[in-house]
Amino acid sequence: MQICCIFMHYQRKESTIAMIRAGIIGATGYAGNEIIRLLLNHRETEIEWLVSRSFEGQSYSDIYRNFFDIIDMECLGSEIENLLNKVDVVFTATPQGYLSSILKEEMLQKARFIDLSADYRIKDVDIYEKWYGIKHGSPELIKRSVYGLCEVNREDIKNTDLLANPGCFTTCSILTAYPLIKEHLIDPDTLIINALSGVSGAGRGAKVANLFSEVNESAKAYGVTNHRHTPEIEEQLSYAYGGTVQVNFTPHLVPMNRGILVTETASLNPGVDEEAVRNAYEKHFKDEFFIRLCKDGANPETRFVEGSNYTDIGFKVDQRTKRVIMMGALDNLVKGAAGQAVQNMNIMFGFDEREGLKAVPMVP
Amino acid sequence: MQICCIFMHYQRKESTIAMIRAGIIGATGYAGNEIIRLLLNHRETEIEWLVSRSFEGQSYSDIYRNFFDIIDMECLGSEIENLLNKVDVVFTATPQGYLSSILKEEMLQKARFIDLSADYRIKDVDIYEKWYGIKHGSPELIKRSVYGLCEVNREDIKNTDLLANPGCFTTCSILTAYPLIKEHLIDPDTLIINALSGVSGAGRGAKVANLFSEVNESAKAYGVTNHRHTPEIEEQLSYAYGGTVQVNFTPHLVPMNRGILVTETASLNPGVDEEAVRNAYEKHFKDEFFIRLCKDGANPETRFVEGSNYTDIGFKVDQRTKRVIMMGALDNLVKGAAGQAVQNMNIMFGFDEREGLKAVPMVP
Amino acid sequence: MQICCIFMHYQRKESTIAMIRAGIIGATGYAGNEIIRLLLNHRETEIEWLVSRSFEGQSYSDIYRNFFDIIDMECLGSEIENLLNKVDVVFTATPQGYLSSILKEEMLQKARFIDLSADYRIKDVDIYEKWYGIKHGSPELIKRSVYGLCEVNREDIKNTDLLANPGCFTTCSILTAYPLIKEHLIDPDTLIINALSGVSGAGRGAKVANLFSEVNESAKAYGVTNHRHTPEIEEQLSYAYGGTVQVNFTPHLVPMNRGILVTETASLNPGVDEEAVRNAYEKHFKDEFFIRLCKDGANPETRFVEGSNYTDIGFKVDQRTKRVIMMGALDNLVKGAAGQAVQNMNIMFGFDEREGLKAVPMVP
Amino acid sequence: MQICCIFMHYQRKESTIAMIRAGIIGATGYAGNEIIRLLLNHRETEIEWLVSRSFEGQSYSDIYRNFFDIIDMECLGSEIENLLNKVDVVFTATPQGYLSSILKEEMLQKARFIDLSADYRIKDVDIYEKWYGIKHGSPELIKRSVYGLCEVNREDIKNTDLLANPGCFTTCSILTAYPLIKEHLIDPDTLIINALSGVSGAGRGAKVANLFSEVNESAKAYGVTNHRHTPEIEEQLSYAYGGTVQVNFTPHLVPMNRGILVTETASLNPGVDEEAVRNAYEKHFKDEFFIRLCKDGANPETRFVEGSNYTDIGFKVDQRTKRVIMMGALDNLVKGAAGQAVQNMNIMFGFDEREGLKAVPMVP
Repeated sequence: MQICCIFMHYQRKESTIAMIRAGIIGATGYAGNEIIRLLLNHRETEIEWLVSRSFEGQSYSDIYRNFFDIIDMECLGSEIENLLNKVDVVFTATPQGYLSSILKEEMLQKARFIDLSADYRIKDVDIYEKWYGIKHGSPELIKRSVYGLCEVNREDIKNTDLLANPGCFTTCSILTAYPLIKEHLIDPDTLIINALSGVSGAGRGAKVANLFSEVNESAKAYGVTNHRHTPEIEEQLSYAYGGTVQVNFTPHLVPMNRGILVTETASLNPGVDEEAVRNAYEKHFKDEFFIRLCKDGANPETRFVEGSNYTDIGFKVDQRTKRVIMMGALDNLVKGAAGQAVQNMNIMFGFDEREGLKAVPMVP
Repeated sequence: MQICCIFMHYQRKESTIAMIRAGIIGATGYAGNEIIRLLLNHRETEIEWLVSRSFEGQSYSDIYRNFFDIIDMECLGSEIENLLNKVDVVFTATPQGYLSSILKEEMLQKARFIDLSADYRIKDVDIYEKWYGIKHGSPELIKRSVYGLCEVNREDIKNTDLLANPGCFTTCSILTAYPLIKEHLIDPDTLIINALSGVSGAGRGAKVANLFSEVNESAKAYGVTNHRHTPEIEEQLSYAYGGTVQVNFTPHLVPMNRGILVTETASLNPGVDEEAVRNAYEKHFKDEFFIRLCKDGANPETRFVEGSNYTDIGFKVDQRTKRVIMMGALDNLVKGAAGQAVQNMNIMFGFDEREGLKAVPMVP
Repeated sequence: MQICCIFMHYQRKESTIAMIRAGIIGATGYAGNEIIRLLLNHRETEIEWLVSRSFEGQSYSDIYRNFFDIIDMECLGSEIENLLNKVDVVFTATPQGYLSSILKEEMLQKARFIDLSADYRIKDVDIYEKWYGIKHGSPELIKRSVYGLCEVNREDIKNTDLLANPGCFTTCSILTAYPLIKEHLIDPDTLIINALSGVSGAGRGAKVANLFSEVNESAKAYGVTNHRHTPEIEEQLSYAYGGTVQVNFTPHLVPMNRGILVTETASLNPGVDEEAVRNAYEKHFKDEFFIRLCKDGANPETRFVEGSNYTDIGFKVDQRTKRVIMMGALDNLVKGAAGQAVQNMNIMFGFDEREGLKAVPMVP
Repeated sequence: MQICCIFMHYQRKESTIAMIRAGIIGATGYAGNEIIRLLLNHRETEIEWLVSRSFEGQSYSDIYRNFFDIIDMECLGSEIENLLNKVDVVFTATPQGYLSSILKEEMLQKARFIDLSADYRIKDVDIYEKWYGIKHGSPELIKRSVYGLCEVNREDIKNTDLLANPGCFTTCSILTAYPLIKEHLIDPDTLIINALSGVSGAGRGAKVANLFSEVNESAKAYGVTNHRHTPEIEEQLSYAYGGTVQVNFTPHLVPMNRGILVTETASLNPGVDEEAVRNAYEKHFKDEFFIRLCKDGANPETRFVEGSNYTDIGFKVDQRTKRVIMMGALDNLVKGAAGQAVQNMNIMFGFDEREGLKAVPMVP
């Protein structure tokens, strides 16, 4: 039975080397949909199957009609172990706790996993269980996983078979502060992170709170003091700092489809000036394709990264208060989810890291 | 010549005492438009004339067609001194520097002024001139003015003839932190203010940056470290604290018409717990009609104050970091501008402070 | 037990005659919420109880936090017959088929009903059952009901105890064409109605299709050829015409909270010119407070009626094609639902028809 | 002097044949910006220069910061004749009347022109001058131009050096009706076209009418009976029909960045049923890559084509009224402007027609 087909015009793969085959579990969420969009422009990968428990048996392009006439695949159900034999890489864009409840050592021998959930992001399983309120189903595999913040952990990513893809807020929050934390230019005890998110970050579940008429023309903070991305941010910044970093992270929902914008404030260490700050950013990110350091005076705006894998970063030193304001912007579904997942796949499989990810941000 | 007419159905004034007469200078900006909307439901005031230099000679309801069939008044030009004889109160919703360049002592004897610009908000004229980059035209009148944050300065407001109506960001930022600053529950050196604003706050000028396709589906910080509302916030919080307060205030533009949301973070002083914080808010605001203290666990959302004069305030104590997150929401055109101006007028003229301001917030 | 309380500041009723008491069934939908918002500014009515089957036992202002500190009432469940004794009028903002399944003759003797559902709008029960796919539970009461299009049926409305409040698309579609149909200026066989609706018209149910990320930044037609408002439009226009009118009505969903805009096209009868068209509109609507006939060259825009009970109507005669383009705009939750319901109540109880409905449209 | 540079990562051209060189005049409007976005993913073309009279001398990526770190080119001014020597093709995304005022025979011998303005779309210069209110500067060149509606005029496009790229409303309106007009299945005298447009269609000029706070949360018709795309639609449909077609075209502005949705209504000719309608669409469009005929019951939505060159078309036959409702959706900046321009370039230069245009629509 032919359950899988991508229309010929999109199978314009030109590579002479064999392509890798990918499967996607959780294909009908916004992140799953975005992985598919990106992989269709990836010249080294073909999509082998799509799994969606909620939409099993339905045609994918009936659910996401942007794919009409582009892919003709039916959503499969949960017999995942058999499906693993057909692919080289599996993307899991599934609810927290799902992958950890089913993943076993032998599955990792069949395919490499790129997990977009939080299940393997946090090394300390107690912290995971406390913040997520979920019992972790496979704590023995956590150590094996690599945290896939590409620009920071590139070397470790190359060889892993269990990649924990970072969260959207997390990616933006960490990258924006990383050079200054790493170089000890700011006092980590003063780091305050405020973040804005477009509504697609809340997922495609049918909830009253995410109806158009509930979130349009409004803004609110949520998850105040207890948002689940907090320990992930703290853990990674602590590694960078070489000591404990504890932050207040306050996310806000604003009425737009896509985009994360973070604004971080911290006290500069004595003697640190604007030049030192800029040098630190350039030292770490000047050569990073997917990080763009804004010119002086230009603040990141989410529209300038929409649809792309870029993170735009800017900063302003406040002479009056001896603080630095750091700002970062990314597309929560691309660099904040599917794009970074593909970037990680590229690193893991030795492809050009930019393959499939060169779309220019779309304005307006 | 009959230049002024409000249609009969809206002249349903029922007061037996004589009504006061109001004039509005800068009637065609969003704040001016909002003052008119509110005054039409005010039972003690009638609108006598409208001034707009840009639209002189045009029918007001051709410019703002929401007023079609409601008011039939022509915008007058700049012969303001003559107009003063016809009114008891003047609202100036004009660009920074305008009122201070024309205001004279004798004008204040003809009518009481409620100024929505920043001209008389800041007591130290040097600070005004530095942050606004404008030469102040009548510094001798600054001392005479009263800062019209109603819930804080009510007594002084009663007798003034020159009322400096606070800014939108300022009102929200100050009210949200006021009780904790006043009661010395937080360390003012750690106060960080992030704010989100709807686009109407940017005014009705024809600028590319405020076109729909430029700001829709995007978020950005702006005025980072140098937004003009900063010294106003600092001055008022310093009065409350009884010492110098210096903050980082970072505003952001988000794609909605109306609304200000502030999120403020500060370190709690030793021994301060959640109960102490709540007590401070209740001490100062429990009996304030236009301030609503959210229930535990409920964060302010701008939609819940839209169209109304309310400020909703909530907070969350973070035990981990010993900080408090304070949140406030208001409608930038009502409590953040025209509504507070009317509230000030009510106080100045001895009306019920709520007159004309009891509209229920409109959801969705 | 005190289950019902509106905070004192809002109980500023000044009427010397006794106020009527209202109950609302279906209080937690957007239309129910809007009825409450409007009644709080109505000087002849007090709200006695709120019923919501979905939210029974919950505090109303926890669900709609715009009412926080304004009303403190608990949602009641379905023991409606007892509740009828406490009120003079009942608003039912309930799903299609609900009221007709419970309403009985004797209930109408306890209170007058204003039904915002479609149950009693269509005189021919077969047509109702065909278009709605619902068995009508009390067809014997249909004849008794009056179709509450205020500007057309004012006299009949005065005495009814069962008022069928028109639909949002319907009100706008009928009013916009009514004078030209009534005066036989257009050929009814050529009438094409296109309509745009804000998303609140789709209700507050938790459906994926109405999530922000599904409807924002998109437009679509829906209910093409079979939208349920079609027979209602046709029936009323047929009465006006004195013969059968059959139309194509095509609604569209556009990304805004509120607003209905209709654009109707029809061929002018021979000899009909622009003046005749304008005369017809003025003949029927010039003295109607809630209908505003736009000036020549000014097309209705939904923003100019937002939050108000107005319907703005404009037209353009096309000399080339001998057609007229008629346009109408209203707020779907006010004149398209709750506002017209209150207007009907005013007519039924002999109040000033404008009582509680004089809010100026809010721009922006 | 190095005025032109595209960063190396984007110069990943792999073609072995020589690439063509493109220049863009009017590069800083939304259509110009979109042409550049598309050409950066086109493997047979390199961008040679950008012209913008308004932004002469400024860095392009300072104006459109989505291109930051991607292109580093300065906007050139108006010495266009010299620039022609450096390119094979010129895109003009300029105001109406500009190209016709400067274009001369000899310029066409240096480079082939793809004009996104209306200057050469209408064959009858009197009709152009009447509807646009502009004197045409080079009427002698009109005959030479080819109307670039790719799916209809593909053969003529191949050889032209003056391509008149169709308008956004026009492309959508014509394609949606074309098969039924061409096959004489509908009565052209009954064709009514309603259209919705996102705000980017109004351009990037600094006009109050297009400010966020003026168009957000509102909908309106505009250009009623006299929109300039009307004669273009009529001319092309008349060619298809083989006789005069006259329509009422009514565009509306709705609050979204991108997208055109048309809804067209016409009476079916006697005996025409749903199957005949579907057959006509399939006959003309089944093999067209960029036209997707929706499944029965699925209406086009603009979100499903966003960012792509697709036109989605659907229809519904109304048995009651013997009419057909035709619906079409496209992205106004892609298939409605820049995408079709690139598609035309592909046809003109013998490239794969889909080159550079295979992006999957981006949802949400």
